[in-house]
Amino acid sequence: MKTKKRIVIVGMGFGGIRAANALAGKGHEIVLVDRNNYHLFQPLLYQVATAGLEQESIAYSVRAMARKWPGTRFHLSEVIGVDFARREVRTDNGSIPYDYLVIGAGSVTNHFGLHSVERYSFDLKELTDGERLRNHILTAFERAVNEPDPSRKRALMTFVIVGGGPTGVEFAGALIELVHFVLAKDYPELSTHAARVVLVEATDMLLAAMPEQLRTYTLKKLRSMSVEVLLNSRVVDAGPERVVMHDGAVIPAHTLFWSAGVKAAPLAATLGLPARPGGRIQPEPDLTLPNHPEVFVIGDMAYLEQDGAALPMTAPVAMQMGIYAGKAILAKEAGTQMPPFRYHDKGSMATIGRNAAVASAFGMNFRGYLAWLVWLLLHLYYLIGFRNRIVVMLNWVWYYWFHERQVRLITRREVEVDANRSGGI
Amino acid sequence: MKTKKRIVIVGMGFGGIRAANALAGKGHEIVLVDRNNYHLFQPLLYQVATAGLEQESIAYSVRAMARKWPGTRFHLSEVIGVDFARREVRTDNGSIPYDYLVIGAGSVTNHFGLHSVERYSFDLKELTDGERLRNHILTAFERAVNEPDPSRKRALMTFVIVGGGPTGVEFAGALIELVHFVLAKDYPELSTHAARVVLVEATDMLLAAMPEQLRTYTLKKLRSMSVEVLLNSRVVDAGPERVVMHDGAVIPAHTLFWSAGVKAAPLAATLGLPARPGGRIQPEPDLTLPNHPEVFVIGDMAYLEQDGAALPMTAPVAMQMGIYAGKAILAKEAGTQMPPFRYHDKGSMATIGRNAAVASAFGMNFRGYLAWLVWLLLHLYYLIGFRNRIVVMLNWVWYYWFHERQVRLITRREVEVDANRSGGI
Repeated sequence: MKTKKRIVIVGMGFGGIRAANALAGKGHEIVLVDRNNYHLFQPLLYQVATAGLEQESIAYSVRAMARKWPGTRFHLSEVIGVDFARREVRTDNGSIPYDYLVIGAGSVTNHFGLHSVERYSFDLKELTDGERLRNHILTAFERAVNEPDPSRKRALMTFVIVGGGPTGVEFAGALIELVHFVLAKDYPELSTHAARVVLVEATDMLLAAMPEQLRTYTLKKLRSMSVEVLLNSRVVDAGPERVVMHDGAVIPAHTLFWSAGVKAAPLAATLGLPARPGGRIQPEPDLTLPNHPEVFVIGDMAYLEQDGAALPMTAPVAMQMGIYAGKAILAKEAGTQMPPFRYHDKGSMATIGRNAAVASAFGMNFRGYLAWLVWLLLHLYYLIGFRNRIVVMLNWVWYYWFHERQVRLITRREVEVDANRSGGI
Repeated sequence: MKTKKRIVIVGMGFGGIRAANALAGKGHEIVLVDRNNYHLFQPLLYQVATAGLEQESIAYSVRAMARKWPGTRFHLSEVIGVDFARREVRTDNGSIPYDYLVIGAGSVTNHFGLHSVERYSFDLKELTDGERLRNHILTAFERAVNEPDPSRKRALMTFVIVGGGPTGVEFAGALIELVHFVLAKDYPELSTHAARVVLVEATDMLLAAMPEQLRTYTLKKLRSMSVEVLLNSRVVDAGPERVVMHDGAVIPAHTLFWSAGVKAAPLAATLGLPARPGGRIQPEPDLTLPNHPEVFVIGDMAYLEQDGAALPMTAPVAMQMGIYAGKAILAKEAGTQMPPFRYHDKGSMATIGRNAAVASAFGMNFRGYLAWLVWLLLHLYYLIGFRNRIVVMLNWVWYYWFHERQVRLITRREVEVDANRSGGI
C-alpha cells in the first residue's frame, strides 16, 4: 500500500524547483523551504548590476510556482540545521519533520580567507546584491563629477573584476558597454573614455571550461572593447579606494568585484559531514547521504566526481540533480531503484557584449552573433514567468536599438551602501 | 545685450522638471539639483506597494531627461539651505551660486505630532517606501501562515489606512484586490476572506475634492469590495500590533498606513520665512519670494490662495507652477513681465479598483469603466519614459486578464524592515 510521505525541499534554486516539479502531484506532501519567497535567476543578476534589468524581472514568486504544484506548500524561513536522527529540519521559524529531505541550499562567495577583499568587494549571489552594486557604480560616477583631484576621479571610474569565469567575463563586458554606450551620454562633463574596467584572472586563460578557440576569441573581443585583461594575476589585498596585486602593484579603484570562486552555503558545515573541496558534501552516487537514503544533497552543495573530475558548481548540474532526486524518491516509494546519477553536459556559454558570445555545445563551437542569439534565447527560455520574459526581452531590444539602459536609478545613497558594506558583504 | 544666467532648480518633481523643460535651450546655464538621480512618478507608488508594479517602472533618470535639455547639468545632492544674500544654494555636496533659483522640494508626510503613529506607520512619499511597504504586507501574510493564535493571525491580516483622499482610496482598493484576487490563491492555508482593510477618514466624506455624486459612488464601491470605511473617525495612537481610535476603540492591526496629510519639505523651515499652513511658504502672486524677485517657490512648498481658497498640494498645481516659473524667468530676461500665476483646474480623478474610478473634469462627472479607462490613459501619458509606459501597461494588462500581480517579492526580511521602521519613517 502506498503511503503519503512528507518531502521537504530546502532551497528554491535551480535544483530545488526541478525536484519540486518532479515530485508535485504524485500524492505526497511537499514542503518547500527558502529564506526568500522567490526563485532567483542568478545568471542575469549581472545585468541588474549594470542597469540593464530591474531586479523584479529575474525573480519569481515561489507561491506562484507552488500553485501549479499540487500537494506543495511553502515555508519562508532560513534553515539552520538538520536533525537526521529525528528527521527534522530546524529553521529560524520552527522545525519541520520529514520522511524525505532534499537539500539544495546553494553556494556563497568564496573569498579564500582574504578579509580585506571580503570587506571591500562586491559580489552577485543574492537578488539585492545586484541593486546594491548598481547603486555603487552609478554613485561612483556621480562622485567623479564633483571630484577635483584627477587621480581620485580616475579611481572612482576604475572597476576591478576578479575571476575570468563566465560571471567575470559577462560582467566586464556589460560594464564597459554601460560606460561607453550609456554613461558617456549621461556624463558629458566626464571623460568616460578614461574609465577602466580591469579583469583579473589567476590562470593564463579566461573561461577555462571552454575550448581554446573560444577562449582566444573571448580574450581578443574583451580587449577590443577596452577591457584590460590581466592574466596570471591575483588580487591579495583591498581597501575602499585601492586594490593590491600579487606583485605589490596597486590599482587605485573605488570598486572591486569578486567572482573568483564559490563555496557551499554555510548550512553544509552544520551537517556534521566531512567537508570536501569548497566546503561541499559528498553524497553517494545516488545523491543520498551515507547511511541516510532518505536525504538527498543537490546542486552547488554536492561534491560529486564523474569520469575522474568533480562536477562544476553550475545551474545545469543543479537542475539535473534536482530532477534526479525527485525521480529517485518516487522510485524508492514505488519499490524500484534509479541508476546512479550521471550528469549530461549539454555545453556552456557566455556572452561578452553586443552580438558577441561564445558557446560550446553538441561538440560544436559557436561564437559571435549566432552564439549571442542562442544565449539570449536560452536565457529567456530558462527564465521563469512569462511576464518576466517579456520585460527582459523588452529591455534587451531597447538596449540593442537605442544603446540605452533604463534602470539607471540610485535607489539608496552611498552612506547607506557603505553602511551595508561594513556590515560585511 | 542678453547675458547668460545661471538658473538653479531644486527638486526634480513634477514642478521642477516642467521648469527645466521650459528653460532648457534658451541660452542659460541650468543646474538641476535633487538628492535622488531620478524623477519619481508618485501617483503610482501605491501600485508598487501592492505588488502591481516594479519600482523601476515609475522612476526616470534625471540625466536621461537632461540629455534632451541643452544647457542643463545635474547635481546629485541634498539642499540644506539657501543663502539669499550671497545667492548660493547650500548642499551636502558644496554650494551652488545662482542668478535665478526655483525651489520645488516638495512635501513630506504630516503626522500632526502623533509620535507613535510616525514610528509605527508606513507612508508613500519616497521610491523606496513602496518596496518597504510591499515587503511588510507580504511578510505579514507569511507570518500569518505560521501564527497559531487566531487573534494574532487576524491582526497580521488587518490593514488600517488613514486618510480618505485619493492616496488612501486608491491604496485601499488596490490592497483589497491584492488580497482577494491574488493572495487568496497564494495562501490556500489562510482564510484570506478574514483579512481586513479598514479605511479611516476624519470627516464625513471620502475624496472631499470631488462632487457629492462621485463621493457617494466611491464609498459604495469600496464597501462593496469589503473595505471597512470608518467616517468621522481618527487614529490617535499606534503600536506595532494595534491602532487606537479617537473613541478609545482598539483595532488589532499589524499594518498602519498613513495618508492623512502632507506638509512642506523640511527645507522650507530653513529659509527664514514665515510658515503658512502645512509649513509652506507664501510667495508673491508671481511665485517669487518677497524682496527676492530672482527666487521662485513652486509646488507643494508654495502656499498660494486663489479665489479665496488655498491651492491644493497636488501634481497638477506643481506642474503649472513649474511651467510658469520657467516662463517668468525668460520674461524677466526679455524685459517683459508675466501676469500673476493662475491655476487652471482641469479636474481630478481617483481609481478604486477594476473597471471602477471616479473623475471630475470639464464640469462633467465620470465614474465606473469610462473613468477608469481615462485614469489609465492619463497616468500612462504623464509617466515619463516610453519603456516605462510599456512595462506599466504590460503589468496592467496582465493583472486585468489574469488577476495576477507579478511583483510579489519580499526583497528584505522583516528584521531589516523593522530596523528601518525604528530608524524613524
